[in-house]
Amino acid sequence: MRAASRSDNVNFEDIRAGDRRALSRFLTLVENSRDVVAEELAELSRRADDHQIIGVTGPPGSGKSTLIAALTKLYREVGRTVAIVAVDPSSPFTGGALLGDRIRLKALAGDKGVFIRSMASRGSLGGLAWRTQDVVRVLAAAGFNIVIVETVGAGQTEVDIAGLSPTTVVVQAPGAGDDVQANKAGLLEIADILVVNKSDLPGAERAKNALKAMLDLGHPTKAKAQDQPIWVPPIVLTSAIEERGINDLAECIASQFSYMQKHGLLVAFQEAQLRAEFMHRLRETLQRRLFDTFTAEEFAGIIRRMVQERIEPQRAVDQLLQNVEFRRRK
Amino acid sequence: MRAASRSDNVNFEDIRAGDRRALSRFLTLVENSRDVVAEELAELSRRADDHQIIGVTGPPGSGKSTLIAALTKLYREVGRTVAIVAVDPSSPFTGGALLGDRIRLKALAGDKGVFIRSMASRGSLGGLAWRTQDVVRVLAAAGFNIVIVETVGAGQTEVDIAGLSPTTVVVQAPGAGDDVQANKAGLLEIADILVVNKSDLPGAERAKNALKAMLDLGHPTKAKAQDQPIWVPPIVLTSAIEERGINDLAECIASQFSYMQKHGLLVAFQEAQLRAEFMHRLRETLQRRLFDTFTAEEFAGIIRRMVQERIEPQRAVDQLLQNVEFRRRK
Repeated sequence: MRAASRSDNVNFEDIRAGDRRALSRFLTLVENSRDVVAEELAELSRRADDHQIIGVTGPPGSGKSTLIAALTKLYREVGRTVAIVAVDPSSPFTGGALLGDRIRLKALAGDKGVFIRSMASRGSLGGLAWRTQDVVRVLAAAGFNIVIVETVGAGQTEVDIAGLSPTTVVVQAPGAGDDVQANKAGLLEIADILVVNKSDLPGAERAKNALKAMLDLGHPTKAKAQDQPIWVPPIVLTSAIEERGINDLAECIASQFSYMQKHGLLVAFQEAQLRAEFMHRLRETLQRRLFDTFTAEEFAGIIRRMVQERIEPQRAVDQLLQNVEFRRRK
Repeated sequence: MRAASRSDNVNFEDIRAGDRRALSRFLTLVENSRDVVAEELAELSRRADDHQIIGVTGPPGSGKSTLIAALTKLYREVGRTVAIVAVDPSSPFTGGALLGDRIRLKALAGDKGVFIRSMASRGSLGGLAWRTQDVVRVLAAAGFNIVIVETVGAGQTEVDIAGLSPTTVVVQAPGAGDDVQANKAGLLEIADILVVNKSDLPGAERAKNALKAMLDLGHPTKAKAQDQPIWVPPIVLTSAIEERGINDLAECIASQFSYMQKHGLLVAFQEAQLRAEFMHRLRETLQRRLFDTFTAEEFAGIIRRMVQERIEPQRAVDQLLQNVEFRRRK
């Protein structure tokens, strides 16, 4: 099998022993051609040790990268290893133009206990959240204690990706108009912990109060069912460049994580996520299977007819599927 | 058939004669339960007269709504009817919190030749672009000369929705840091016409020059093939509240539209869009068909086993589909 031979080079023992080049190579395989490493991923899913996934998101300019650098430094001081996945969904064309913002992260790169991976959308956004999920899965299996997923920007894709983490930190900076920014983007709803970063700047307390007021208006937490306990997101003031408030943030993250574990919310969250991923992959696979049923010429003909005769797309789909039978094997 | 009876109330002659309540009712049906009105939509697709679809997008605070109001006023003065679809994908939870921004649009609502429809994502974003497409299709068939699709925010969903219009206007406002905002969000790449609105504010010329410089760096237009002509997006200065530059903008929109028609780009664009919609609806329909093949209990069982035994989702999908046969009918 060609598939197997392409990933033969990947040595999991090397990866778990800390070989960063082997890890990078494997992540590239996972990102580019998932099918090739399907077996390995399945194996890795079962291998992931105890680890914590933290999503960090917020509008551009809120200082996420500096905050993550400070947080990582703190985790390293207590001996925990940290992998950082920096996702840039906003620019399908420039493919990660904002990486320059991450110079502070790069200062950490000399440390063997820190691993940084950048991901861009490459023009196809639909699967970015699930590709990120694969990368996180590999990093957890590679033995990192903490996996931080940073998303740049403030659109729906960021919300989707942030939703992959059981702990989501939403970062704001004080400033005119910024008060409502979190709410506009739907970020407030996904926040488990709210951070007002750059608290050395004027307006930090005001921003905190504005967030507080918004939370009081009713925060739909991840625990939506009536009979489930409600986690009220704490609001933390930090100044990442002055390394202030980072301890508080780390404590909030730890509290929220134990809260999730204690109330069975972590397991519920992971299950919901597996279900969503299953549905996504099911749709993709069904489409591939259907394509295998038709020749490329037949398929092109159907589409050409739809275009020429201005057939409504759903009707064209129904006509196509009239000729296909789904059958359960006995 | 229950499906038919639910849309029996919809009278297309009423809609085309200008009955706004009948139109609103039908749009609600289309948005909520597309299948119920599949026949009607197919019929409408063929009925749409000559019309123009204009997408307007840009970051919050750029004054899109005021600009659209001014543009609509101008179109009305030359006797054209205008439908405005205001889409708010950014907030799945609050469902259109930004509608307050649209007070200026509402001032137009007394005019029988203007129709305004708001859409929010309702928590499920995947289909929002196609739901918008359905709504646009109905509005075109209802006889509106111009359909303006406004998207709020600057994420990927906005880019997707803006991509549904053969003419996309990207609106910017002058201001510190704003210069690069269009590029960050990938908005520059989808722009057919760039507007620096609020040109009464300082920095408008500077913003225009910054955009010009970015365009000169190479603008990947919708006509990507080497042998196709290239439309270079003009940059228009407007002040929507002072109603300045609106004529220039309308002229640019008209020029770009004739350019698209003249070079066969409009037809090519519509065909590409039909193809994309076909693929989306195909995936959705395949999934439904598969669900019909299994009982709800069987399906729940497969998912439960995946969760309990920590089976990797793709593997669970493959196991499920092993028992399903796709067959061409003779």
